[in-house]
Amino acid sequence: MSYVKPGREYARDSRYITARITADGRDGFPVEPGRYRLVVSRACPWASRTVIVRRLLGLERALPMAIAGPTHDERSWTFDLDPGGRDPVLGIERLQEAYLARDPDYDRGVTVPAIVEVPTGKVVTNDYAQMTIDMSLEWSAYHRDGAPALYPPALRPEIDAVNEVVYSDVNNGVYRAGFAGSQESYTQAYERLFARLDWLSRRLERSRYLVGDTITEADVRLFTTLVRFDAVYHGHFKCNRQKLSEMPVLWAYARDLFQTPGFGDTVDFDHIKRHYYAVHRDINPTGIVPVGPDLSDWLKPHDRAALGGRPFGAGRPPEAVAPEEAVPAGHTPSS
Amino acid sequence: MSYVKPGREYARDSRYITARITADGRDGFPVEPGRYRLVVSRACPWASRTVIVRRLLGLERALPMAIAGPTHDERSWTFDLDPGGRDPVLGIERLQEAYLARDPDYDRGVTVPAIVEVPTGKVVTNDYAQMTIDMSLEWSAYHRDGAPALYPPALRPEIDAVNEVVYSDVNNGVYRAGFAGSQESYTQAYERLFARLDWLSRRLERSRYLVGDTITEADVRLFTTLVRFDAVYHGHFKCNRQKLSEMPVLWAYARDLFQTPGFGDTVDFDHIKRHYYAVHRDINPTGIVPVGPDLSDWLKPHDRAALGGRPFGAGRPPEAVAPEEAVPAGHTPSS
Repeated sequence: MSYVKPGREYARDSRYITARITADGRDGFPVEPGRYRLVVSRACPWASRTVIVRRLLGLERALPMAIAGPTHDERSWTFDLDPGGRDPVLGIERLQEAYLARDPDYDRGVTVPAIVEVPTGKVVTNDYAQMTIDMSLEWSAYHRDGAPALYPPALRPEIDAVNEVVYSDVNNGVYRAGFAGSQESYTQAYERLFARLDWLSRRLERSRYLVGDTITEADVRLFTTLVRFDAVYHGHFKCNRQKLSEMPVLWAYARDLFQTPGFGDTVDFDHIKRHYYAVHRDINPTGIVPVGPDLSDWLKPHDRAALGGRPFGAGRPPEAVAPEEAVPAGHTPSS
Repeated sequence: MSYVKPGREYARDSRYITARITADGRDGFPVEPGRYRLVVSRACPWASRTVIVRRLLGLERALPMAIAGPTHDERSWTFDLDPGGRDPVLGIERLQEAYLARDPDYDRGVTVPAIVEVPTGKVVTNDYAQMTIDMSLEWSAYHRDGAPALYPPALRPEIDAVNEVVYSDVNNGVYRAGFAGSQESYTQAYERLFARLDWLSRRLERSRYLVGDTITEADVRLFTTLVRFDAVYHGHFKCNRQKLSEMPVLWAYARDLFQTPGFGDTVDFDHIKRHYYAVHRDINPTGIVPVGPDLSDWLKPHDRAALGGRPFGAGRPPEAVAPEEAVPAGHTPSS
């Protein structure tokens, strides 16, 4: 699979299937517990947003989840972690099958996250940016008691503004650095990335969260990139001005979130490293996966509580992860 | 050029041309000022040992130096930094020419450092490990006043013992990690490397230098690997448990040496990064050179003087680098 186009900037294919699952079912897909299956990989930052938001909001029973393996071939993510290599609910081996069920001529990316309608086996949407917003706004009837307001009306303009620059410069910025086809496009992505991280550091120096004084959608979106930073983006994508662990404000912010129920307990560093280093053979031809970095510091004190703020606002943290969805021991730092 | 052999450990070709330049001239190559030319690249850690030792001992006039460019093709290092792309003394464009002058059938590595006999244009030796020892012991008639004793008789057994494990696990260990042809051989090299770095950290915690209380050959050999660690070995060679800058004892030790005249003033980070990332296309196919890491911390205080010891023993530091041998501004951190 070719990620780098020689001489060219990296350009993400952002043509998604954009049907929405809504409370009123206006696209033909009404919110309904058990009707849909969220397909993710824990390796993928875009999918990880949905894993975190689903858990923060307590949608585990309403919207069950299928976890694909960390690596995939040119055609598809696969369910190689499941017995028989087949998702037990959808009955398929490859996520591609659900895309082709939706459109036999589908020729774009077989991406995660994807939400599949179980009775028909068809992908409803892979529009990840809309997905987490809809979990907050459209699935609210099924939120757990004490769920946080991740996208509260009063803060939406500010959340949207932050998300926009974080997407361009950080979430997608690391890919623009790593898959750059020229020294110039790499350098431009690198400069934008670190300028934005410096901006975020200043913003977070006296504020515990990105927008307001509770966790929001904006924190989820920044977190999924930060948690991968030292494990893959720093070396593999050449985002190496500093490690995250050398940027004190962002590092403490990321640790604070990591230690907040719903964030770190969804992170599988083994899947993350194996995915990036094994799949992107055009920038890592040997496929060798680094042993490092040492991850134990993720559990160290962050001292961010002194900045005030309440992670869950008037709500409360989710309960411990259900055993069937727990990240395997050894794939995450343990205390 | 293929550095990685799939499925195999990395094995350095250590068949060198082992004639020696000695005071008594027993191999036909007597020490004689101006008769020889030291050919180096500032990118190369093995060559950098000779650059440092030559300067510490004040052999600049007795043993002039040619500096090859940081990158090379399959056949040879080249003098592309010189006017007309030709070394002004040897009159050659490619170091390979001096190897072929020595042996028309030469088919091993065209390596730096190499010492070339100027009148014949032939390589005398490329046996880098012997070269710095001979600079200390055989060229002593031409040492500057105040030159340090880098290989004093009483300390030789200990220096040799340290050098042996540092070579296997660290100097060559980083290459064994970076050019590993299998996950197993990479992991083994990584584990040995960091175990040895931990051992070195313990050794240097209360001792300013590796052996005795002055700089020796052992410090030179460890330094040339440490100074490249964050710039190339951490990411490019996957030696990523921590950065050097995250290993406090070794980091302070390396900064202490970097700030000692004769060490840091020979280091060209631009050449180092361009060499590794541009030449090893089998592990970095795009040839893109990272912008990072931030190098400014190399000049920060190291607080190692409190451990005692005198870098130059009864001697004194060398004078400032001669302008014609100075590392270009912008290739090294500046205060």
